Amino acid sequence: MSNPIDAYIQENRPRLLDELKDFIRIPSISTLPEHKADVERAARFVSGSLQRAGMENIEIVPTAGHPLVYADWLHAPGKPTVLCYGHYDVQPADPLELWITPAFEPTERDGNLYARGAVDDKGQMYMHIKAIEALRAVNGTLPLNVKFLIEGEEEVGGASIAKYVAQNSAKLKADVALVSDTAMYAEGMPTLCIGLRGLIYMEVEASGPARDLHSGLYGGAAPNAVYGLIELLAKAKDANGAIQIPGIYDGVEEPAAAELESWKRLPFDEREFLEKEVGSTELTGEPDRTVLERVWSRPTLEVHGIAGGFTAAGAKTVIPAKATAKVSIRLVPRQDPDAVIAAFREWVKKNAPKGIQAEVRVLSASPGLVVNPDHPAIEVAARAFGEVFGKQTVFIRSGGSIPIVGDFANHLKIPTILMGFGLPDDGLHSPNEKYRIENYYLGIMTVAHFLELYGG
Amino acid sequence: MSNPIDAYIQENRPRLLDELKDFIRIPSISTLPEHKADVERAARFVSGSLQRAGMENIEIVPTAGHPLVYADWLHAPGKPTVLCYGHYDVQPADPLELWITPAFEPTERDGNLYARGAVDDKGQMYMHIKAIEALRAVNGTLPLNVKFLIEGEEEVGGASIAKYVAQNSAKLKADVALVSDTAMYAEGMPTLCIGLRGLIYMEVEASGPARDLHSGLYGGAAPNAVYGLIELLAKAKDANGAIQIPGIYDGVEEPAAAELESWKRLPFDEREFLEKEVGSTELTGEPDRTVLERVWSRPTLEVHGIAGGFTAAGAKTVIPAKATAKVSIRLVPRQDPDAVIAAFREWVKKNAPKGIQAEVRVLSASPGLVVNPDHPAIEVAARAFGEVFGKQTVFIRSGGSIPIVGDFANHLKIPTILMGFGLPDDGLHSPNEKYRIENYYLGIMTVAHFLELYGG
Repeated sequence: MSNPIDAYIQENRPRLLDELKDFIRIPSISTLPEHKADVERAARFVSGSLQRAGMENIEIVPTAGHPLVYADWLHAPGKPTVLCYGHYDVQPADPLELWITPAFEPTERDGNLYARGAVDDKGQMYMHIKAIEALRAVNGTLPLNVKFLIEGEEEVGGASIAKYVAQNSAKLKADVALVSDTAMYAEGMPTLCIGLRGLIYMEVEASGPARDLHSGLYGGAAPNAVYGLIELLAKAKDANGAIQIPGIYDGVEEPAAAELESWKRLPFDEREFLEKEVGSTELTGEPDRTVLERVWSRPTLEVHGIAGGFTAAGAKTVIPAKATAKVSIRLVPRQDPDAVIAAFREWVKKNAPKGIQAEVRVLSASPGLVVNPDHPAIEVAARAFGEVFGKQTVFIRSGGSIPIVGDFANHLKIPTILMGFGLPDDGLHSPNEKYRIENYYLGIMTVAHFLELYGG
Repeated sequence: MSNPIDAYIQENRPRLLDELKDFIRIPSISTLPEHKADVERAARFVSGSLQRAGMENIEIVPTAGHPLVYADWLHAPGKPTVLCYGHYDVQPADPLELWITPAFEPTERDGNLYARGAVDDKGQMYMHIKAIEALRAVNGTLPLNVKFLIEGEEEVGGASIAKYVAQNSAKLKADVALVSDTAMYAEGMPTLCIGLRGLIYMEVEASGPARDLHSGLYGGAAPNAVYGLIELLAKAKDANGAIQIPGIYDGVEEPAAAELESWKRLPFDEREFLEKEVGSTELTGEPDRTVLERVWSRPTLEVHGIAGGFTAAGAKTVIPAKATAKVSIRLVPRQDPDAVIAAFREWVKKNAPKGIQAEVRVLSASPGLVVNPDHPAIEVAARAFGEVFGKQTVFIRSGGSIPIVGDFANHLKIPTILMGFGLPDDGLHSPNEKYRIENYYLGIMTVAHFLELYGG
């Protein structure tokens, strides 16, 4: 522990964790209108933390949705500028009854911190602020220029930040963006993520009869909205998960042979993945693709929820008039979101069963993307990992979506370093989400090392 | 109006309707535990009305579920005994926002009484009590022996009455049962229903991963319980509604040629049925069967409701761990409910998609059945209709299920007269359920005429 930054972080462990717990206790669920005040409280928490870390020009930027938090420190002329991004909003915590300890009361167990948002993304975005604090506390200054842009709508499609980035490219000018919202490939294995899937999130609503009908009197002749939606959606994939919508695979770019080779060298135990992570009897998906290909470089279609008809306890014999499903398509590089949406709409129109009207509403859309691993900032990030972990960095992709990375590429023309400290079993979006506490400290160190190295 | 019974009913119209309204105001929803006290209140209302009508030996019979109400009047030695059956429980009223006037505030509009239970079955079962009252008021006695058995679980499968009938066959001994829980074929057309479909009501629960998973990180490789349930249920029927479960049509009895011929003579306007009753763009069902065959004499499978995953407003990108559907199969005469359940279970086991566990829970099961139209009591019922309506009675079937009719046949060895006064557009089980007020009065008269004629 010769590095004084690392020493500072070690000395301040309890306080660094307590502050994060205070942040996590705010139930900033962006998709639920009843949590609007909590989301705003989380934005104020972030701005306060940035201030205490020594950041300047702090703004809470109102938007049509939830506020953005901006800050900068620009006193390193001639040095590069890093744009730190994260999100302070979280997913809903339901089903609440499956949490061992309350979702918004961060609890330490076995070296982990359990709470909604522990790893996605409060725990990870907070590392950036704490790395700045550590650098300023030890050195009295920063080794390069830093900007922060933190959003509160990542879990609901990020419409406001997308607009803000498009309209404020001069203000946000930077050499590289730094994002910690991904996972390490495995514990103790420093990882840079260089590819993400995009996401189209939609609602499909089916209408059958004008009103709920008695299934005795009309069953056999009247269309059923729930069954119509079932029939429609069942045609979307074959038994192996291959999407059956014409044109959906247009543009899909296969990873280069070298990248595919590197994935084969990664430790991957399919049985452990099945039993410990998925917890099912069998994996699904395209049989001619490895599991890593299926989740990293192949488009997929999922139904996230479905509701219609009578679902309370007991029996009600209705033919339901309406049913709705939440459907997403994950996109990989070179697929065009607009073309995929058009193909989906066309397919719904052609495949809606007899007597069923189906309406498609698009809630959000973002493309998949890959970052060039030879970019100098990526190379420096790998060196920072090496200093802190004493190991070589692996390059992976993630099947998740971080739409902002596409916005940074399009509007700011900068690459993004996806320096994640989550673990594969952290349970993002699930009950009992957790964050490895050690990774929180290692993350603060690695970010600080990266900023020092990149500042030269 | 030479008949004094008819005159009594005419003179008492306002009071007869007001009493029914008081009955309907009790929200006796048997499937919702929070309405247990209301269901009990409705049972007490029925027993009070029976008492005021002059019935004797009144009992509120406690059961494992909701209470039965029994009463008799047995002072006509040598005369036949009629067992009057009805149910005082109702379906849930949701979706509440679609009701024009509140579900449990009976409201008169255009000669109809709008309320949950107006026709199914409070308005119709109450006619029996009022017919007894009228006969006793005018004649001072009854023309035959009468027993009443009224239940509060018809809408949830009727488990308690089935048990009670099986265990009390001596007490319930009668020559015929009288049930008013069906509809006239059309307004002004006296109708006896001589066939009913049976019903198997089930829940199918699908389990995929051990917990909800992030669809970005696992989508493409992990089984999805909602999609698995969709895939499974979509295989249950072909695009024409024919059930694809092996063995499901075993035993299905085709109606006799004469009965099929009589159905062809019934007025039926397919366009009007589609537009005014169903309210959809197209009918569904087996194309080689008429609509009346499809709903009266063919088995059908319906999904009444489905729930799973994230269904609130907004977006959540989960791969759901669980999903549940309410599924029913309507049965026609000679299909064996146990064999159909076994066939369904076997089919679910064979067709559950990869990685999906599917569990079937049977909530209730009853066979379909037909009554012989040449039975003397049926012939007398048709004459009573003729006296009140001045028209010939038509013989139809109903696609609905009245399990008690099967219990009366099995345990009491008696046929059931299904003398219904509902109309096809009454909206049973739907928002804005109604009962034609004139039919309520005509029904009381017809029941009274039937009892007088059958008493000889």
